[in-house]
Amino acid sequence: MNFKTYKKEGEYSYALGASVAIELLRTNPKDCLGVILSPNYTDKEGIIEGLCEAHNIPIEQNQKLLGILSPKENCFVAAAFAKRRHVLDKNKTHVVLDQPSDMGNLGACMRSCAGFRVYDLAVIGAGADAYNPKAIRASMGAFFHVRVQYFESIRGYLDIYQNNREIYTFMLKADHVLQGLAADKNEVRSLIFGNEASGLDYGTYKDIGKSVVIAHSDKIDSLALPAAVSIALFSMSPPR
Amino acid sequence: MNFKTYKKEGEYSYALGASVAIELLRTNPKDCLGVILSPNYTDKEGIIEGLCEAHNIPIEQNQKLLGILSPKENCFVAAAFAKRRHVLDKNKTHVVLDQPSDMGNLGACMRSCAGFRVYDLAVIGAGADAYNPKAIRASMGAFFHVRVQYFESIRGYLDIYQNNREIYTFMLKADHVLQGLAADKNEVRSLIFGNEASGLDYGTYKDIGKSVVIAHSDKIDSLALPAAVSIALFSMSPPR
Repeated sequence: MNFKTYKKEGEYSYALGASVAIELLRTNPKDCLGVILSPNYTDKEGIIEGLCEAHNIPIEQNQKLLGILSPKENCFVAAAFAKRRHVLDKNKTHVVLDQPSDMGNLGACMRSCAGFRVYDLAVIGAGADAYNPKAIRASMGAFFHVRVQYFESIRGYLDIYQNNREIYTFMLKADHVLQGLAADKNEVRSLIFGNEASGLDYGTYKDIGKSVVIAHSDKIDSLALPAAVSIALFSMSPPR
Repeated sequence: MNFKTYKKEGEYSYALGASVAIELLRTNPKDCLGVILSPNYTDKEGIIEGLCEAHNIPIEQNQKLLGILSPKENCFVAAAFAKRRHVLDKNKTHVVLDQPSDMGNLGACMRSCAGFRVYDLAVIGAGADAYNPKAIRASMGAFFHVRVQYFESIRGYLDIYQNNREIYTFMLKADHVLQGLAADKNEVRSLIFGNEASGLDYGTYKDIGKSVVIAHSDKIDSLALPAAVSIALFSMSPPR
């Protein structure tokens, strides 16, 4: 194995930390290219070794690479995996993030998506890289349950997916308040959220779908992006 | 002025970034000890200068200190302020975090608290430091709207505050599901959440209040702490 530091243009990425690596090995073992362990890692229950053996995945010890992959916190396990390009499911509810800038937020959104049974995530424009190990780590492995598709513009997304679904745009200047929104629990939806700092561009989005605000006090300018996504999913996610 | 790097035991902390510093200057100007600017900072509208002048707050340029206070990202403004110790309001709903470990999460929880009109936050045990500039930064200034009180144990908190309120403990093994919980919107509450990794200790909490789970899919082990707090606040926060 000759793994290098993560590259956005590269063909592979990493699941960092034992729990995220195990999620990869359990859900997508065929994508796993190899597992890197610290000499200090003790796999008491042999879970990682067992999964690697079952799926013929090579293991190597490489403390130096782990230090490069995770410079800020100690990381004892990294699992390399081949990046897959996804296409969203036309018949399912989507979360759509327009230019999310923070990988931690993107990962947090994936975690709540998977938690509320929304397994399709669109990222519009120059958004954060969902395949970056930081985003995957922040998702706590939910990344491996979510299809992520990138689009250059919201128009590119809508051209493919807007039929047969209700579009909700989350913005402060909105026609509807989430707290009072009576929406059919069974409808297929796109829930669209803007960038952390700037939100959805009103000019672009004012004529797209139904605009919704999550009413909040005037003590904050806006809710954090993962908080808004989590609340919207809780309130509007598909039934079991 | 002779400000140093932040110390947990110290008497002052910092609001990092222009928007957080402005929040401090607008809400608690008497606590502000001084403002540190980068030579590269241009305050086009003169907001910070104006507020400092109005409240007799000294300003100095000190790029080196800004680099020490915010080593990872460029920071052009820091406002030092005297730490205040708070006592929670006995008549208001509280969020209670038992040993939150991450300062970013703590800040995110403060932001959602302020957003949903819960201005009292208890931190139990060896929790993250709410006064750390990282937590304040993550709160986007909501820190300045929230009373934070630390307790050595949940017993210490309950001894003072448990009268006249309903206690809800958020845990995976619970008697109630949030989605189906019919709770009086006007009741005064404590919403208690556990540590990011371990949740609330069942032995300690099983006989305290009503246990509640936010039902989620089996694709994730749990919701992120700020997601859980935000959803609970959205669902159970006091009316306007």
